[in-house]
Amino acid sequence: MADSYWLWYPGDMELYYRMEQDFSRVERGYGWPAFWKSDGFRNRVVFRRTYDLERETEFRVVSKAVGYVLAGDKKYPFGQRVCCPRGEVRISIHAARIDAFPSVYIEGETVCSDRGWMAEDYAQPPVPAGYSRYFTRPDQDPARWEYSEEIYLPVKTERINGGVLYEFETELTAALQVRCGRERLEGMTVFCGESREEALDRERCYYSWTPGPDTGEPPRCAVRFAFIPGEEVELAALHRYVDIPVRARFHSGDPLLDRIWAVAEHTFRLCSGVFFIDGVKRDKWIWSGDAYQSLFVNRYLLADPDIEGRTLLALRGNDPMTGHINTIMDYSLLWVLGVKEHFAAYGGREFLELIWPKVRSLLAFCEKRLDGRGFLTAREGDWVFIDWAELDKDGPFGAEQMLLCACWQAAAELSGALGLDGGEYRARRDALAAQIDACYWDGELGAYVDSFTSGRRHVSRQTNLLAVRCGVADGEKRALILKNVIDNPAVPPITTPYFNFFQLDVLADCGRLDEVMERLRSYWGGMLDRGAVTFWEEFDPAVTGPAQYDMYGDRFGKSLCHAWSASPIYLLGRYFAGLRREGEGFAIAPRLDYLPELDCVLPVDGGDGFASLRAEGGALTAHTNRPGGVLELNGRRFPLPVDGDLTVEL
Amino acid sequence: MADSYWLWYPGDMELYYRMEQDFSRVERGYGWPAFWKSDGFRNRVVFRRTYDLERETEFRVVSKAVGYVLAGDKKYPFGQRVCCPRGEVRISIHAARIDAFPSVYIEGETVCSDRGWMAEDYAQPPVPAGYSRYFTRPDQDPARWEYSEEIYLPVKTERINGGVLYEFETELTAALQVRCGRERLEGMTVFCGESREEALDRERCYYSWTPGPDTGEPPRCAVRFAFIPGEEVELAALHRYVDIPVRARFHSGDPLLDRIWAVAEHTFRLCSGVFFIDGVKRDKWIWSGDAYQSLFVNRYLLADPDIEGRTLLALRGNDPMTGHINTIMDYSLLWVLGVKEHFAAYGGREFLELIWPKVRSLLAFCEKRLDGRGFLTAREGDWVFIDWAELDKDGPFGAEQMLLCACWQAAAELSGALGLDGGEYRARRDALAAQIDACYWDGELGAYVDSFTSGRRHVSRQTNLLAVRCGVADGEKRALILKNVIDNPAVPPITTPYFNFFQLDVLADCGRLDEVMERLRSYWGGMLDRGAVTFWEEFDPAVTGPAQYDMYGDRFGKSLCHAWSASPIYLLGRYFAGLRREGEGFAIAPRLDYLPELDCVLPVDGGDGFASLRAEGGALTAHTNRPGGVLELNGRRFPLPVDGDLTVEL
Repeated sequence: MADSYWLWYPGDMELYYRMEQDFSRVERGYGWPAFWKSDGFRNRVVFRRTYDLERETEFRVVSKAVGYVLAGDKKYPFGQRVCCPRGEVRISIHAARIDAFPSVYIEGETVCSDRGWMAEDYAQPPVPAGYSRYFTRPDQDPARWEYSEEIYLPVKTERINGGVLYEFETELTAALQVRCGRERLEGMTVFCGESREEALDRERCYYSWTPGPDTGEPPRCAVRFAFIPGEEVELAALHRYVDIPVRARFHSGDPLLDRIWAVAEHTFRLCSGVFFIDGVKRDKWIWSGDAYQSLFVNRYLLADPDIEGRTLLALRGNDPMTGHINTIMDYSLLWVLGVKEHFAAYGGREFLELIWPKVRSLLAFCEKRLDGRGFLTAREGDWVFIDWAELDKDGPFGAEQMLLCACWQAAAELSGALGLDGGEYRARRDALAAQIDACYWDGELGAYVDSFTSGRRHVSRQTNLLAVRCGVADGEKRALILKNVIDNPAVPPITTPYFNFFQLDVLADCGRLDEVMERLRSYWGGMLDRGAVTFWEEFDPAVTGPAQYDMYGDRFGKSLCHAWSASPIYLLGRYFAGLRREGEGFAIAPRLDYLPELDCVLPVDGGDGFASLRAEGGALTAHTNRPGGVLELNGRRFPLPVDGDLTVEL
Repeated sequence: MADSYWLWYPGDMELYYRMEQDFSRVERGYGWPAFWKSDGFRNRVVFRRTYDLERETEFRVVSKAVGYVLAGDKKYPFGQRVCCPRGEVRISIHAARIDAFPSVYIEGETVCSDRGWMAEDYAQPPVPAGYSRYFTRPDQDPARWEYSEEIYLPVKTERINGGVLYEFETELTAALQVRCGRERLEGMTVFCGESREEALDRERCYYSWTPGPDTGEPPRCAVRFAFIPGEEVELAALHRYVDIPVRARFHSGDPLLDRIWAVAEHTFRLCSGVFFIDGVKRDKWIWSGDAYQSLFVNRYLLADPDIEGRTLLALRGNDPMTGHINTIMDYSLLWVLGVKEHFAAYGGREFLELIWPKVRSLLAFCEKRLDGRGFLTAREGDWVFIDWAELDKDGPFGAEQMLLCACWQAAAELSGALGLDGGEYRARRDALAAQIDACYWDGELGAYVDSFTSGRRHVSRQTNLLAVRCGVADGEKRALILKNVIDNPAVPPITTPYFNFFQLDVLADCGRLDEVMERLRSYWGGMLDRGAVTFWEEFDPAVTGPAQYDMYGDRFGKSLCHAWSASPIYLLGRYFAGLRREGEGFAIAPRLDYLPELDCVLPVDGGDGFASLRAEGGALTAHTNRPGGVLELNGRRFPLPVDGDLTVEL
């Protein structure tokens, strides 16, 4: 019997859980569903397949949907054994469900729900049915995700303010379980906090709950500290998560770097569930810009293609596209670049074929918003974001055009991967790059300006960093940008960790690792000095005391566990351990000048491929279980054997 | 305090219940959801309104959705009292729900969910919020329809075939309640039937159920007879229905006609719930062609605009349109004609504004399928139906063009009603009518042919009846069609009750009431002779015995309670009682030559307007509570007084 999966219309599982995720934000007592269009799943689908049976066979369809099985010309209820004689048989499974996406599971020797079934929604041509490795048993309902759970007990309690403050060893996404007499439970309020200060601030903490009278459990939320007025009670935290195995290990011998890796790992895992989310306390929404950065971290830590596929499908939604992803123009563009990154990292033609029409329709949506020069412009309701910073967004904004240029390039490459002609996209890329240079490059300033319409000649790091990163700036302009923008203290600095990622990536890519290492130690090390157990949405070393938890003008508004702050994993993995994709294989170029005791394992694909490095006793030993690996050291390249050690004297 | 309604995104309630309806068909143990695209409701909406408050006021929002209230710049949870000071305040209510359409209810003196709220779905411009007279209390959930229920006990029991056959006084849509010991209940099967024969046929009856061990109730289904093997048990039927008041009363003094009216009334009420459905046993789906005919019956019986609005919205679904309604080309066109009929009968600018964009997009969808001459053609997957009959559907099918012509005309009229320029639609209508005459009119045969491409010159009643009914055939051609087609025995007769409606309507409209009356007596009277308590999907006097319940090659496949067979109400009301709309008012021209003892009340609008007639003692007394009424008798017109009697000597 082949492996059976639950089947659904591809993308619908993602749209369903996306809603669960995007509607899960709670703030001080009210629900705050995400403020963009929520594309729904299909309610009526049919799965079809034709078998040529060598012998008589039986099967049974399991489903929570309303529907029937048609085998040949006979109809059967779900749950009933269906017997098919030898020979060709066309099977279709009709399913309808209102409250969740319809899904079916087929048990049988030959006829079963393995790969090969096509799905239809009565509107579009058939597509291969969707499935997930998480739904493989007939007793499941794919509309109920089976989270992993772990119980944590407080590591510390403290009598304070007429109650007890409970502290857990780290931040969790948990339902607190209160065990005490019913009388004590009555009217009890539990105040949760990511910080001690938040849990103790009964007015302004984000989450305060009344445990259920029967369960003794309040809803699940981000919690490291909990305060409960009155005498001490028995308290446990039921932490809920999606168990995505960690496939990397990192030891540098530098305790600070190792600690940064460990905390980044915990941060990233908390923010990686069914989807990449931004933070576990807030917003808990799926943001395309945040997810884009998570792709880079994922590649060096979990290397899980599935969470990327789910996130990309969830973000994009159904066709036709009626608004930018998360309402943000640049987030639509980053989504396209995310698809490219995903495919570059893991391949996967099947997923590419599924998502390619959505890439095309997104670009077609953007095309309707191009001006005469091919620049992407905003319509009413479009949010031109790029970064929280003073930027000159008059007319078509330069930074957006850099991203668009990279999108045309990505579309050309993805076309090629599918065996399609990407010539039109390539031509668009070249034409746009030329227009950008003509309109935005300021020869006098030696930099790209944000806007060519305002006349202000405003130069920002954001626009110029993207020009470099998106391949718009050629070698000469790249050097000018480094000199005139990046190294120019007169150009306002990047203040957000979100854009810091792009800046550090560019700096590292330009080989300026000293600056990157310094930043790792000061910024992420600085958070550790404050006792961080997860990395924060933002960190300003100059701010101390309770004010350090403020953000968006809101006390405790800052998320203390935010995915984009896990980027040290990418920076260390990509530029210091030095692993990168190369053709069909990979190259690894460790910088032992920064990591003298390097001992690490890093994933090299979306399966179980890995490369390990260990520097010990004046020698470096590399190992991999995949072909196509190369070790680069001091300008020399050593092909790596498969399943054998390669040791190089240092 | 003004009246509060539950609010939702307009049309979403209809799409939700449409799925409940279209997924409710069950046949011999399996669910059979309708085989077309099911458009889903929106999951994330926002309701907005600005008040200029004369004094401080309070309100509270109730909802099963996730969300919050934003009043001014402060957010509040649902359920919490919100206090607004005097002056202008902008209120928005954000709501998200996965399993059903999000809806909100606002309780307050001034701020409440009466009319005036706008709804947004993050994709389209704001539209007035949807509401229904059925959802006006805060303790309701608009996703749970509050059906009316009534208990029926068997009127007869009979020991037979080792069990007991229970008979109810009429056909019901009911859950049977079995009262007996738990032991007796175990393993019990209840066999239901629309006919005695069906309930006794354990193999082939449509519904056989096992009552729940705790409730003693099987699911709800169409039932007049129930057979339960073994000793007699206490049985009751819990009939479920939407209580739409009957606003007509009809007495003709002819017992057969009166009985036909009564049975048609019961038939129609059973098939009129949240929507017009085709039949209560099968399919229980919402079909546009069936619904179109129901509009005509409704006008003379319930005169309920709401069920029409719900049905029209449910059928049409969301934009963009991706396929014909029910997959059937002519059903898309009949939907447009239905909108016109609805507006002609009840007015209602608000509904017209809501549905007009959907009319336009349907026509735009059709436009993409026009050939060079402006004829509507089928694409792969389109079902060209018109009728179950031998028709020549080669090339563009003539009957479809007749309907399309009427659609352009309807669109022009509806444009006018909205104060828009309908010139383009009118021009299309005229151009199409000319093309039809040029291509389909066969001067030699004196009739329209089905196809001008096949060369077969096939003449059908269907195409010609629609040519008359859709206003394509002018006076001269009309006469030729009557002679050469309708009265020509060589042209195959109409065999379906569905198309019989169109034929009888045309005959009656041509004043040939003798034939219509004869048909009423023989066809509908014939079913009564067979003991019908509801009118059947089809009736062939030549077939007797169990075979009379066969249809679609399926024993008991015939629906014995089918909406389209309720048309005597329309025929009697429109042509014999003689009530018709006229301008802003109505005219009533009773045919006392056919109905000597006429005593009837008929609705004249969608409110409580009525007209009554009573022929007694050589005089006819008419009464109405609405202005603009005229009595027509023997070629004379008598304006009707409002709230007073007008008596005319006969």
